[in-house]
Amino acid sequence: MNFTFNNPVNILFGSGKINLVGEECKKFGKNALIVTGANSTKKSGLLQKVQDLLAKENITSFVADNIPQNPTTDAVMLAAKLARENNCDMVIGLGGGSSLDAAKAIAFMAKHEGHVSEYILAKRTTNGTCLPVIAVPTTCGTGSEADCFAVLNDTATNDKRTLRQMITLPQVSIVDPDLMRSMPESVLRSVMFDAFCHNLEGYISRHASPVSEMFSLKGVELFAENMPKLLNDLNDKAAWDAICLASTFGGFSLQSAGCIAVHGIEHPVSGLRNVIHGKGLAAVIIPVLEQTIACCPKRFAVLSKILGGNNENDFLDQVEKIRNMLGLNDRLQDLGVLEHDLPWLAKNALEVSKTLLSNHPLSYTEQEILAMYKKAF
Amino acid sequence: MNFTFNNPVNILFGSGKINLVGEECKKFGKNALIVTGANSTKKSGLLQKVQDLLAKENITSFVADNIPQNPTTDAVMLAAKLARENNCDMVIGLGGGSSLDAAKAIAFMAKHEGHVSEYILAKRTTNGTCLPVIAVPTTCGTGSEADCFAVLNDTATNDKRTLRQMITLPQVSIVDPDLMRSMPESVLRSVMFDAFCHNLEGYISRHASPVSEMFSLKGVELFAENMPKLLNDLNDKAAWDAICLASTFGGFSLQSAGCIAVHGIEHPVSGLRNVIHGKGLAAVIIPVLEQTIACCPKRFAVLSKILGGNNENDFLDQVEKIRNMLGLNDRLQDLGVLEHDLPWLAKNALEVSKTLLSNHPLSYTEQEILAMYKKAF
Repeated sequence: MNFTFNNPVNILFGSGKINLVGEECKKFGKNALIVTGANSTKKSGLLQKVQDLLAKENITSFVADNIPQNPTTDAVMLAAKLARENNCDMVIGLGGGSSLDAAKAIAFMAKHEGHVSEYILAKRTTNGTCLPVIAVPTTCGTGSEADCFAVLNDTATNDKRTLRQMITLPQVSIVDPDLMRSMPESVLRSVMFDAFCHNLEGYISRHASPVSEMFSLKGVELFAENMPKLLNDLNDKAAWDAICLASTFGGFSLQSAGCIAVHGIEHPVSGLRNVIHGKGLAAVIIPVLEQTIACCPKRFAVLSKILGGNNENDFLDQVEKIRNMLGLNDRLQDLGVLEHDLPWLAKNALEVSKTLLSNHPLSYTEQEILAMYKKAF
Repeated sequence: MNFTFNNPVNILFGSGKINLVGEECKKFGKNALIVTGANSTKKSGLLQKVQDLLAKENITSFVADNIPQNPTTDAVMLAAKLARENNCDMVIGLGGGSSLDAAKAIAFMAKHEGHVSEYILAKRTTNGTCLPVIAVPTTCGTGSEADCFAVLNDTATNDKRTLRQMITLPQVSIVDPDLMRSMPESVLRSVMFDAFCHNLEGYISRHASPVSEMFSLKGVELFAENMPKLLNDLNDKAAWDAICLASTFGGFSLQSAGCIAVHGIEHPVSGLRNVIHGKGLAAVIIPVLEQTIACCPKRFAVLSKILGGNNENDFLDQVEKIRNMLGLNDRLQDLGVLEHDLPWLAKNALEVSKTLLSNHPLSYTEQEILAMYKKAF
């Protein structure tokens, strides 16, 4: 037994916890940059509410609302400039995974020279500083509130890569299930699948530890029990709580153990064709995992049982059942991927998803990865 | 569902991890105070080894080796002076719970005016600073490596009280199961019971959360499976790993949920009569818990099943079985408590264990507490 566990985020979880945002942010200074998407937090009134709560504590807020669904390195650079120009003391990520991931990268770049891509590609090294990040998720899939990762699309190359800097881990994350209610059901279905994958992948990762495993397995269990309940009754408060917790546990799982090839194979897809991440994951998961089961059957048996199966042999049936319940049955071609993209995707995966592929219990050649994309096409 | 989770300790777990102590401490400065007991780390050579590893990284170490088994406020004040006089940048707790708890209080007092008792009694408020604490446990019971609590005996009054300052949480804890091997078997038996109680009490606490519960239940499970194995074969490496992990999980459990009346009723005993903590816990646990089962039977049923029972009704039988396996059958009178101590103990518990008693699902009068002490006598 040999592991490290270090996740210094302060999680404030529960209905109404959003009301603490001003009080919590006050500790970090007087000027906050709020990073959010173009629409939903404005339409729902949440952005205004947060600004009011900050104002009550004499915190001036600036808004970066140019974050695309798959956040780009260029959007990050622009917002980091805004943070510097306004002497921001903190960056609040308010929204889905895009806003949270962008907030981390913006907080980092507000304190660093050069371009964010240079840090992602390790062409520059960090000076160890970063503005404090406060994460306020409004979707329950990303888990970004409990990990330090910022997944970004490189504007120049379409590469979807991850900024991995421990210092960007949120200092405080406010996980308020009430904030998730504004999600359209189609978004809910996608993000829940993402949360499921984070927990599942963390459990299968080569870097799983006795601590990360607890989060992973509990996350899968909460998902399996509560996803059907929530789809059946979108007013089931206990199910919302449980699904939000499963999502946050996915972040803990990722932070300690990392994702594997399911995310690794999906990233090039949403990098190239701006596919909705959860739909992309659902399209690739079965071709990616079918070879893997034989190399750690006991672990897949544990997962299968939690999902209602009997052993490792019916694990993929359970995944198929979940895809059907969530209505996530698109093939890659239904999501806008073209047949001639496939060789690029396979080549790109080996490069941009090097870390995720190295977490996977099996290693793959470009040809084997291409075969997975073909099956998923 | 409403909770916070915030445990920013960096846990480095595994055989041989002690070799990282220099490298880890280097981040905090050039002068370290090592807080340790009078004998065992000298006899085992561990103290010398740690000093050598520090020296290799150009860290000068000073040693405070005057920490009694139940650490006193006076010992803390003396060592804090030593830390200040030698411009120490960090405090390393090396040893059992006494050394770790003392290290936290020393690191705190190195940065605070006045007497440690004044902060325990909230007569003074913290300035928010503390030297970094590095915890290196050599016993697997305290869990102190994963919580911020420092339990101290007030030299003047015999009160056993707790310094509760988030800032004293260890920055790094090196949990190396190899370091536990030097424990005499009698110590091992006591400390394992302490670890069991931390996990059990955290699960029953009013402040249990979905995160603390995972640590608590896994801690109880690891204890139940591995304690008999370890007693059966003191060279069972996997059992050592598991028991050490159970102990660390007890710390996580405490940090989030807190202990209840089992610890609350024991503390006056070891405060007054310098009783070995684990033996004291074993003496009081059954009288303390027998009234509590009816108020949260489902939780006790969960615990009972993990321990090999069927439901809440045979929970105490499981505890009795564990006491017998560990050979912890002493009554309070066997541990040096006198009959005329009992009224003082009951009065003292209400005062010094206020927080622990408030975590308990039932509230008790002085008369009810006296009745528990009489049963345990």
